[in-house]
Amino acid sequence: MILPVILSGGAGTRLWPLSREAAPKPFMILPDGGTLLGKTAARALALPGVESLLTVTNRELYFATRDVYAGLDDRRVDGASFLLEPFGRNTAPAVALAALQAESAGGPDVVMLILAADHLILDQPAFAAAVADAVEVAQGGRIATFGITPTHPETGFGYIECGAALRDRVFSAARFVEKPRLATAQEYLASGRHVWNSGMFAFTPATVLAAFARHAPELLASARQCWQRLQPMSAAGQTALEIDATLFKAVPDISIDYAVMEKAAAEGEVAVIRAAFDWSDVGSWKAVSELVGADKDGNRGQGERVTVATRGTYVHAEDRVVATVGVEDLFIVDTPDAVLVAHRDHLQQVKDVVGELKARGHESYKLHRTVARPWGAYTVLQEGPGFKIKRIEVKPGASLSLQLHHRRSEHWIVVRGVADVTCGERVYPVRANESTYIPVETRHRLGNSTAEPLVMIEVQCGDYLGEDDIVRFDDHYGRAPVATGGR
Amino acid sequence: MILPVILSGGAGTRLWPLSREAAPKPFMILPDGGTLLGKTAARALALPGVESLLTVTNRELYFATRDVYAGLDDRRVDGASFLLEPFGRNTAPAVALAALQAESAGGPDVVMLILAADHLILDQPAFAAAVADAVEVAQGGRIATFGITPTHPETGFGYIECGAALRDRVFSAARFVEKPRLATAQEYLASGRHVWNSGMFAFTPATVLAAFARHAPELLASARQCWQRLQPMSAAGQTALEIDATLFKAVPDISIDYAVMEKAAAEGEVAVIRAAFDWSDVGSWKAVSELVGADKDGNRGQGERVTVATRGTYVHAEDRVVATVGVEDLFIVDTPDAVLVAHRDHLQQVKDVVGELKARGHESYKLHRTVARPWGAYTVLQEGPGFKIKRIEVKPGASLSLQLHHRRSEHWIVVRGVADVTCGERVYPVRANESTYIPVETRHRLGNSTAEPLVMIEVQCGDYLGEDDIVRFDDHYGRAPVATGGR
Repeated sequence: MILPVILSGGAGTRLWPLSREAAPKPFMILPDGGTLLGKTAARALALPGVESLLTVTNRELYFATRDVYAGLDDRRVDGASFLLEPFGRNTAPAVALAALQAESAGGPDVVMLILAADHLILDQPAFAAAVADAVEVAQGGRIATFGITPTHPETGFGYIECGAALRDRVFSAARFVEKPRLATAQEYLASGRHVWNSGMFAFTPATVLAAFARHAPELLASARQCWQRLQPMSAAGQTALEIDATLFKAVPDISIDYAVMEKAAAEGEVAVIRAAFDWSDVGSWKAVSELVGADKDGNRGQGERVTVATRGTYVHAEDRVVATVGVEDLFIVDTPDAVLVAHRDHLQQVKDVVGELKARGHESYKLHRTVARPWGAYTVLQEGPGFKIKRIEVKPGASLSLQLHHRRSEHWIVVRGVADVTCGERVYPVRANESTYIPVETRHRLGNSTAEPLVMIEVQCGDYLGEDDIVRFDDHYGRAPVATGGR
Repeated sequence: MILPVILSGGAGTRLWPLSREAAPKPFMILPDGGTLLGKTAARALALPGVESLLTVTNRELYFATRDVYAGLDDRRVDGASFLLEPFGRNTAPAVALAALQAESAGGPDVVMLILAADHLILDQPAFAAAVADAVEVAQGGRIATFGITPTHPETGFGYIECGAALRDRVFSAARFVEKPRLATAQEYLASGRHVWNSGMFAFTPATVLAAFARHAPELLASARQCWQRLQPMSAAGQTALEIDATLFKAVPDISIDYAVMEKAAAEGEVAVIRAAFDWSDVGSWKAVSELVGADKDGNRGQGERVTVATRGTYVHAEDRVVATVGVEDLFIVDTPDAVLVAHRDHLQQVKDVVGELKARGHESYKLHRTVARPWGAYTVLQEGPGFKIKRIEVKPGASLSLQLHHRRSEHWIVVRGVADVTCGERVYPVRANESTYIPVETRHRLGNSTAEPLVMIEVQCGDYLGEDDIVRFDDHYGRAPVATGGR
């Protein structure tokens, strides 16, 4: 049996403005409409011998992850397990906790397949073949890693030096090396013995926990303390377990490579599977652009575009038209609240934009104009003095918290579906092309008990319209009664 | 007495996306918040001896022009006169009609000062001094033109060759020459005797009508027929006169330079005032960008911008943040429904974008997201299946037509001011934070009888939401009872 463990972290700041802190790279909608997270889960579920998933992610991303998984239309995700981090930590704590959980749930001999949520692999048969090799290595009591044959002297990845061949495509891992300088990367490329460290692994809990015990015993001890104090997330049942923040802070913030792999390789405990599949970590807009074909001028993109005297340019347009005139080698990404224009040779610096926006306190580093919520999503369409207009979409069967506002009243107009409205003591349906009014200081709730999405326009009126003017009385998603910036 | 005559035409397609067919260059909001039209009118009104204005423009731009003039806060604009063209024609018909009107209203000896609505002149004292020279020339029975000393071998302007000096800064106009080739433009620049033809003139009606009679008698005859059949615009009173479309079509579509000036100059009837003022026809984004100062990297712009490794780049941001990374010499203009990214060496090709959008039938060549109407403005905030959301602003004292829709109902929520609502037989006020409902097939009217603007959100629901689902029963602005694409 294989247990895929999906590590879903990482901000993807080089992919702003599509990737945001609250909706990072694994959740970005790609040109084909999918997400890296969804593709990763689907790739794992398509392997033989997979019955469920274990996902390690931030607690704030739990509901969004559930939504992505629900989109896979695979019943196995219903029972998927989650380890929810209170804040981002490196890979070693996540892997240690996942191993403890896997050992407890699946036994010491289940094969854990560690996958990053933001990698793209298209060749499923080659991926499955490599996993089969890795499972054999893992069942033999060693750690299996997946090495990618370099195509260029990349300085942004770690490398693994292959040692003796164990069998076809499987080598002993002689050495893990950190991100090299260019000259070194060129040597590695020429040597033929070095492969990129993909960050994917396979091992049994018994093997990896033994390796932690030998090479990082303190980390394992602190991770075990966290594991013993896991708490079910109140709104999510027994399959989503929250990690205690205080205990988690005590776990060293280091990578699995540094904590375990480098030392285990030195002792001959690691094997490398040389991958025959395509692989991308989708680290920049260049990688995203390559997901769509180029026209005769080398232009790529999606949405309404007008190109005049334009070459080698990628344009991501959403609901606006984007026109380019006399430009070359640009990446233009247009979203409802932010536009990026970057030259292809400077895509690494896109993260500096995010840093600057964060420093300015500009919301676009963190949130999209459309904000996902456990119950659906909302979009602020316009704000002005004394009013704010939102489009609100409520999923079938979902409802918002029972709440009230001290400083604003709300007009609700249903444009699609049927709303179940609680307003004061009254409970009543509001159908498409009907409206209702929620006075200030009045307890109210919005729900959707139908099987279709509910779409509603809300016009808020009041002298203060911040998201923090909310008192929650009851919430299906375990959120705080005092506002922390949302419904 | 001086009568400024403002010729307000021209599409400004090279200034897309700020300039649109229905809101062209003279109406563009400049970096300082003003418009070229407003600045032109203010410049004219600041001259001594000016009591009123005569404006020649398209009838569709009448109310927008009134709005710009109202913003000048000058009581003289209340009595301003208009000649309204049914479609764009060249300058000769406009000048001939203006001369006939000026002769009739002000007498044969009033000095007409012809100004283009899309020129920018900042040095008012130098402008006033040049006008004083021109008035003297005009009162002496000649045609005065304003020549601009060239700063570079421009091939986009016509030139005037200066002849004998008549006095300080005033020369006989030896010859009008059309847009030259580069080599010729370089010779002109070197000669020192050639000036740019600014398209501004001064003359009395008697002088210019005599010149028309000599050099373009047929044009004058057909213009006179138009003038005799001018009709007061029903919604605007006696000061706005509409030109009959059929008669106007018979007036030759040629420029005043070609029809009159070239020949008049050859006969020694024209003098050139060599302008000592700055002058720009704001013909491209480069000219607009120069209205704001550059930072140390040569970057200019307005709005929320983040610049990383960026040089020589102009960014016009409105309600989105615009980030640039590793780019140079770009012009980026972001508007609610369209984004332009153009290289500084290709700004002339921006008009090709407009051509392409027109060919595609994409609304952004013509309309802004916010559409000005005689009664105020509306903005489509969002459209989806079965619904459309608009923000509607109604000016103090204004009202929309009495109307009905066959296929949609409307929810109105007032967020600022007080609406006078007519719905069926009822007439009632709706105040801020109140709402009302207009059922399908129901006569209704929206008005604002207060002294403050009214801001309202309208949510339309129906199976068809086109602007042409409208039947008008009564309209204060003389618009057709059958829809032609507006309220």
